[in-house]
Amino acid sequence: MSVTSFNPPVRVLMGPGPSDVHPRILSALARPTIGHLDPAFVAMMDELKGLLHYAFQTDNALTIPVSAPGSAGMETCFVNLVEPGDKVVVCQNGVFGGRMKENVERIGATAIMVEDAWGDPVDPQKLEDTLKAHPDAKVVAFVHAETSTGAESDAKTLCEIARRHDCLSIVDAVTSLGGIPVRVDEWGIDAIYSGTQKCLSCTPGLSPVSFSERAVERIKARKHPVQSWFLDLNLVMGYWGGEGKRAYHHTAPINPLYALHESLVMLREEGLENAWARHRRNHEILKAGLEAMGLRFVVREEARLPQLNSVTVPEGVDEAAVRQTLLQRYNLEIGAGLGALAGKVWRIGLMGYSSNLNNIMLCLGALEAALIEQGAKLEQGAALAAAQQAVNA
Amino acid sequence: MSVTSFNPPVRVLMGPGPSDVHPRILSALARPTIGHLDPAFVAMMDELKGLLHYAFQTDNALTIPVSAPGSAGMETCFVNLVEPGDKVVVCQNGVFGGRMKENVERIGATAIMVEDAWGDPVDPQKLEDTLKAHPDAKVVAFVHAETSTGAESDAKTLCEIARRHDCLSIVDAVTSLGGIPVRVDEWGIDAIYSGTQKCLSCTPGLSPVSFSERAVERIKARKHPVQSWFLDLNLVMGYWGGEGKRAYHHTAPINPLYALHESLVMLREEGLENAWARHRRNHEILKAGLEAMGLRFVVREEARLPQLNSVTVPEGVDEAAVRQTLLQRYNLEIGAGLGALAGKVWRIGLMGYSSNLNNIMLCLGALEAALIEQGAKLEQGAALAAAQQAVNA
Repeated sequence: MSVTSFNPPVRVLMGPGPSDVHPRILSALARPTIGHLDPAFVAMMDELKGLLHYAFQTDNALTIPVSAPGSAGMETCFVNLVEPGDKVVVCQNGVFGGRMKENVERIGATAIMVEDAWGDPVDPQKLEDTLKAHPDAKVVAFVHAETSTGAESDAKTLCEIARRHDCLSIVDAVTSLGGIPVRVDEWGIDAIYSGTQKCLSCTPGLSPVSFSERAVERIKARKHPVQSWFLDLNLVMGYWGGEGKRAYHHTAPINPLYALHESLVMLREEGLENAWARHRRNHEILKAGLEAMGLRFVVREEARLPQLNSVTVPEGVDEAAVRQTLLQRYNLEIGAGLGALAGKVWRIGLMGYSSNLNNIMLCLGALEAALIEQGAKLEQGAALAAAQQAVNA
Repeated sequence: MSVTSFNPPVRVLMGPGPSDVHPRILSALARPTIGHLDPAFVAMMDELKGLLHYAFQTDNALTIPVSAPGSAGMETCFVNLVEPGDKVVVCQNGVFGGRMKENVERIGATAIMVEDAWGDPVDPQKLEDTLKAHPDAKVVAFVHAETSTGAESDAKTLCEIARRHDCLSIVDAVTSLGGIPVRVDEWGIDAIYSGTQKCLSCTPGLSPVSFSERAVERIKARKHPVQSWFLDLNLVMGYWGGEGKRAYHHTAPINPLYALHESLVMLREEGLENAWARHRRNHEILKAGLEAMGLRFVVREEARLPQLNSVTVPEGVDEAAVRQTLLQRYNLEIGAGLGALAGKVWRIGLMGYSSNLNNIMLCLGALEAALIEQGAKLEQGAALAAAQQAVNA
């Protein structure tokens, strides 16, 4: 058994997350650990909440990072807002809607599914029809940016429909936060969770969440205790919550919270609108190169996420071999397909710090070479030429 | 709102955790992030499992770090091993037994409590009597090292009793692992969870767990699905588990896992027995100094944890003011009392990297000065003299 330190290879991360972590954020991770009730730490927590308000575009008092990855953020929303016997409408258009269904059922609640094809956005009309057929539904849940396909759903419209039918909304913003507009208050989102390792370019392991006042009222009026002690927001609020003394709940992950703070400081320095514009612009450049190689996008243009580019693997190409070449020869990671799309697509991430011109040129050059090596009839350099043109456009 | 980086003060951490984190471990945290399915990362996971086998003294195949703090490790044990309607015997002699009860009840199971005074170890005879009175009990749960009091319970004997009554055992080893002997296989422990921020001297946020084959069989034979999707070991095993391809479950917290790997490499370099002896020796030195100041231990000598020294606050002393002086003047953190002991005791940790002579001398010198400042009739330097004598003994 090895007893030596682990020194990871230096990769370029252009998969579905984690994305490249900026050196400032890695450096923040390594700052000296202090106690989770230290006054200096508590002051940092308050700053962090303010920075999350900005990132989520909300004034929600209950806006905190859950001390575990995005999946636990999802579970936090469901176990706090859903009670046994409740009816929850879950929109599914990829892997993560299916995970929402699992969450609902493990609470002893009923999931009413609104299904759309993988790669399509959620159809608002289908949601409307389902809510008309189920007037006793209490919650609507959907994924804003489906990481398994690269499709963006219209969160604003879906939340409006939910509210009109007197439902709370739960929104998965794991891949959207920081990459495309997410406006919690303006859109009337009741509960939202995200991840740190996507467009925030932080290390994985934390899940920022935010809850509207309506959602907090629902939590306080629960008939059954929240089934998870660790994720019970009634308890978590005692540590992260409002004014005065912090009550010990669990030991917060100190250093990862330094990193999240730093990543949000960087987001604020850049400005949300600028970050969104950068993701959009870089997507256009990558798209020009990918299309010059004849690669087709899974998602139709108007619903395409700029930060996650799913393209179909060409006939006759060994997709795993291509990814292996990219990893071994260039230290470049791109993503495989997930679930129904496994083996059929590549998912190329341009998230957070990874969304930059250097990565795009590397990815296009390396991918084109790998495809040519696999026998694809491509003109050498055409993808890069198309990207250069888009840069200069 | 602040938009500047957070630079924490440099503290000396002698509370109940987090403990001081070694620079090697902080440095590991800041290594480049790679993907959670990267072959290099998967190889590191395998090493990590081997290192955890060593730390827990077990061959259990299901030995992994849960991607969240110790409280989530506790919940992992309960939600996977307990089903609705089950009867669970919970031994309580401090805060964390109470948290176990909460976990049991939120599953819809029944907790039969075995109560001992705060500061006492769990009484094996009481457990024996309770199991005789409840022959249908399925699980026995107790805290090996009660962080709220500093008491060690006899895990070996308690697990023997549990097994004799055909119960699985769940053991809280958050504060014991790496500081005092923990022998999972020899003692017949069925499920155990720990934390990273105590005697492993890593940053908080992960919870190493291990499950015996009997426990895994129980999980596989469950009648009800595990109520937590995030903590369902049937799913987690697909990512961390045995041979072959890793299935995506959640995105692992990459960098914190680098840090845990490094801390376990350091534990192996030192050797478990040497680490236990160091904790014991340093406790004796601190004890000599504390007793020279007239401070009395909460826990009787034979059940005292060397890594967590709970002493009674002397009459007339403002305990919070003393802690504030230590923090502000020396950047030294010691712990306050928790639960029933709040305001009555200090908890002085000598955990992991914090368990060293430098910290002891600083703590004794600073505490003695603060007590004299508060009007205590103490001879200046007496505590340090007693400690010096113990060092040279």
